[in-house]
Amino acid sequence: MGEFELIRRYFAAAACAATADGVALGIGDDCALLTPVAGAQLAVSTDTLVAGVHFPALCDPFLLGQRALAVSASDLAAMGAAPLAFTLALTLPDADPAWLEAFASGLNRMATACGLALIGGDTTRGPLSMTLTVFGQVPAGLALTRAGARVGDLLCVGGPLGEAGGALELVLGRLAAAPDVAEPLLERYWSPPPQLALGQALRGRATAALDVSDGLLADCGHIARASGVALVIDAERLPPSPALESLLGPERALQAKLSAGDDYVIAFTLPPAELAELQRDWPQVRAIGRVEAGAGVRVLDGTGRDITPRQGGYLHFME
Amino acid sequence: MGEFELIRRYFAAAACAATADGVALGIGDDCALLTPVAGAQLAVSTDTLVAGVHFPALCDPFLLGQRALAVSASDLAAMGAAPLAFTLALTLPDADPAWLEAFASGLNRMATACGLALIGGDTTRGPLSMTLTVFGQVPAGLALTRAGARVGDLLCVGGPLGEAGGALELVLGRLAAAPDVAEPLLERYWSPPPQLALGQALRGRATAALDVSDGLLADCGHIARASGVALVIDAERLPPSPALESLLGPERALQAKLSAGDDYVIAFTLPPAELAELQRDWPQVRAIGRVEAGAGVRVLDGTGRDITPRQGGYLHFME
Repeated sequence: MGEFELIRRYFAAAACAATADGVALGIGDDCALLTPVAGAQLAVSTDTLVAGVHFPALCDPFLLGQRALAVSASDLAAMGAAPLAFTLALTLPDADPAWLEAFASGLNRMATACGLALIGGDTTRGPLSMTLTVFGQVPAGLALTRAGARVGDLLCVGGPLGEAGGALELVLGRLAAAPDVAEPLLERYWSPPPQLALGQALRGRATAALDVSDGLLADCGHIARASGVALVIDAERLPPSPALESLLGPERALQAKLSAGDDYVIAFTLPPAELAELQRDWPQVRAIGRVEAGAGVRVLDGTGRDITPRQGGYLHFME
Repeated sequence: MGEFELIRRYFAAAACAATADGVALGIGDDCALLTPVAGAQLAVSTDTLVAGVHFPALCDPFLLGQRALAVSASDLAAMGAAPLAFTLALTLPDADPAWLEAFASGLNRMATACGLALIGGDTTRGPLSMTLTVFGQVPAGLALTRAGARVGDLLCVGGPLGEAGGALELVLGRLAAAPDVAEPLLERYWSPPPQLALGQALRGRATAALDVSDGLLADCGHIARASGVALVIDAERLPPSPALESLLGPERALQAKLSAGDDYVIAFTLPPAELAELQRDWPQVRAIGRVEAGAGVRVLDGTGRDITPRQGGYLHFME
């Protein structure tokens, strides 16, 4: 079976969507062809997931397929880009049809949910890993970057924090929990819903944005550096998560909210006047702090005491 | 060191070029932003190279960097696309500064030669492999696909065939040769010049095109299938290669020209009236056969005898 045929067979649903608007030519030639709408910029992001580093080597391939695309789509969301298409470069130790079918079906499900068409790919033999490149479009000048936060803006997040980090304790078998605690956490880890609609709603409103992948503190550090400001987080205003608090207890739950990665919710800065209207459509949006003059990220408790942890966020390879 | 900082430090030259036309935002945010010129389509191609599969695990990182980008850029050439940008997802067993510096310097050299700006990437820890995604632009409707070859067209190639396959025998130490034989072959393997200018010159002239990566027979099979035609190759008209013929002898050299992969020259079909003018600017272009009604690919010797090898081309994983 040829590599294109392999991809076509298992990823048919996502590849079919390649007749979508903006995709002039899908899988099967030397290149795919995208036709962005007039005046749009094309947003591009690449992520690699390696077995044993970014996901457990032994895991459910359906869930892995879902999560792999969700993680990449989240970068489009954080940029305010409308989803368009993606490519998949899949490296496999062998061609196990059952594994491929389940993986493709998780990937296809997320592709359909996000509106992303599979336009190309490559299959190679080797240790399990995958690189996804996602494409979106955004009207020129309206993309949400990390630079642009202004003193006086609120710091906001689009959803709960730390839950994927809590789930990882379960995934790796370090902790166990009853289903009412475990299930919502595992759902966040395996199927983080990319906040694509929220990202587009933030165009022209948010002054800076990114998706929380490395942990809130580390990612807020990226905004602070790129924008030349300080960010202050009020620990008491972080979104509550009964499941996480039940799993870890209040102290470690707070630590997870501040430092655990993999949540893929959008963190953004917003002029205070914008908050009320935004929360009408997006009630899960919470202001968790503010932008001040200076540099770096600080965490304050309810009394205003600085409780910033020394170590910030999940550290990738070589960080 | 953060992953962006790592990429920035070692790939500075290529990343600097990200102020190039068409690149609105380079490395360092959630997404890069491309602004294709009005009326252009964006050509996208993804390739993965795995150590021990696509290149020898022990090899010169400078040469590897050159070759990795050349292989991907060749897909843009085959589509008639003008080069724009690329992303690099690099998986490394460890962060060896000497290795990274040499790899980056080969990659940067090819990026500069091709006019491709590095706009994003990801570094992860794991067994050595890399996925490159390249972006080019082509006026809407002018991209060269594999479909479109017409009965009566000539089958042409943009350069020598089989030389990279011959070089692989040297790279893997299966054969040895004097420098005057080895050097030109090794140059083709490690630094195949992507035929970007030729590809753009073929817009509006060639009826179908691709780059020869899997071997001439296998790749001609792709054109034949996509276009619904038969391709006939005249073995005697294949470009001569003194180095290859000296290394392998005439019979195995012919076999390599027909079936060895990795050459990355453009194969294309062309109305006969176009050939003379094209060869004025591109003297290395040769007509090696023709398009006939039917299906499949046949090879004929000087007497018209069918000498098609049973097995066609380098077979990728799972083919």
